[in-house]
Amino acid sequence: MKFCSQCGASVRLTTPPGDNRPRYVCSSCHLIHYQNPRIVTGCIPIYGDKVLLCKRAIEPRYGYWTLPAGFMENGESCEEGATRETLEEACAEVRELQLYTMFSLPHIDQVHLFYLAQMSSENYAAGTESLEVQLLSEQEIPWDELAFPTIGRTLRHFFADRQHNHFPVRSEALLRPVRAN
Amino acid sequence: MKFCSQCGASVRLTTPPGDNRPRYVCSSCHLIHYQNPRIVTGCIPIYGDKVLLCKRAIEPRYGYWTLPAGFMENGESCEEGATRETLEEACAEVRELQLYTMFSLPHIDQVHLFYLAQMSSENYAAGTESLEVQLLSEQEIPWDELAFPTIGRTLRHFFADRQHNHFPVRSEALLRPVRAN
Repeated sequence: MKFCSQCGASVRLTTPPGDNRPRYVCSSCHLIHYQNPRIVTGCIPIYGDKVLLCKRAIEPRYGYWTLPAGFMENGESCEEGATRETLEEACAEVRELQLYTMFSLPHIDQVHLFYLAQMSSENYAAGTESLEVQLLSEQEIPWDELAFPTIGRTLRHFFADRQHNHFPVRSEALLRPVRAN
Repeated sequence: MKFCSQCGASVRLTTPPGDNRPRYVCSSCHLIHYQNPRIVTGCIPIYGDKVLLCKRAIEPRYGYWTLPAGFMENGESCEEGATRETLEEACAEVRELQLYTMFSLPHIDQVHLFYLAQMSSENYAAGTESLEVQLLSEQEIPWDELAFPTIGRTLRHFFADRQHNHFPVRSEALLRPVRAN
């Protein structure tokens, strides 16, 4: 960030009095511009013994498979955001949302939430951000073609917990993935 | 917001192509400025049969009692944020954090998280944002002087669940409080 969103003057990175970390502060009106993590909220849409996955039609991870999810918007609850994203990306209606996984991703300033959700019917279709949408059994999950680590972890937890029909909320911090090169 | 934080030109509120809600878009470089809910993260610091509360030394709700909590920062996990806030506001070290309550507050674009947390010792003191800090039993909680609705709900859940020594994660959406006038 280079300019104050309120008055248009330049900002500088400085630690305000009484604070303990650098912030973008306006050189003219002195407004402090805080920057905070964003929430990604989504669903594990369940129908019978299958879950609904979307093949991404957008970057990042074009062509990889994801659970329907996206950035939470102002003015909505986490559950409303997850329901909205499922409708937008998979044209599927869900109900009975139940918080299931929560991941902190400090290296990208995000928190990911996934809700167990019952599909209201077998109706679904690709939304504008999806190439295709499919109901998949555990054996059909494309484990090597999942878009993000939080998708794989959520699905692995789900199929493991389903064996005992007990789905405790799982809260984890995921560090930056180690790269081979 | 009135000006683009990247180039300093004016922004206008318009719905970008392919989007379904108005955003602040730069009139010059066309950058879209998304605005998203912020996370408040905090602890229920537990020591024996008491919990640690802070009397606020800052607005809003100066002089009212709160659990130690504050805005999650970039670069940290939800648990790290809750631990940091407890140290900053109550000078108390906590461990064994366990997610307990999550509240969506769509009318103020916030999500509040509270973690059950064991105090490492009986040491605590007022941080710069607190007038005083006290370890309080259930009977000593100043129910009519709590700073925010999410504090009261978290404490009520805690003392009820403690009777059964079972603390399921509780996820709720809180709508705007009804006002008498």
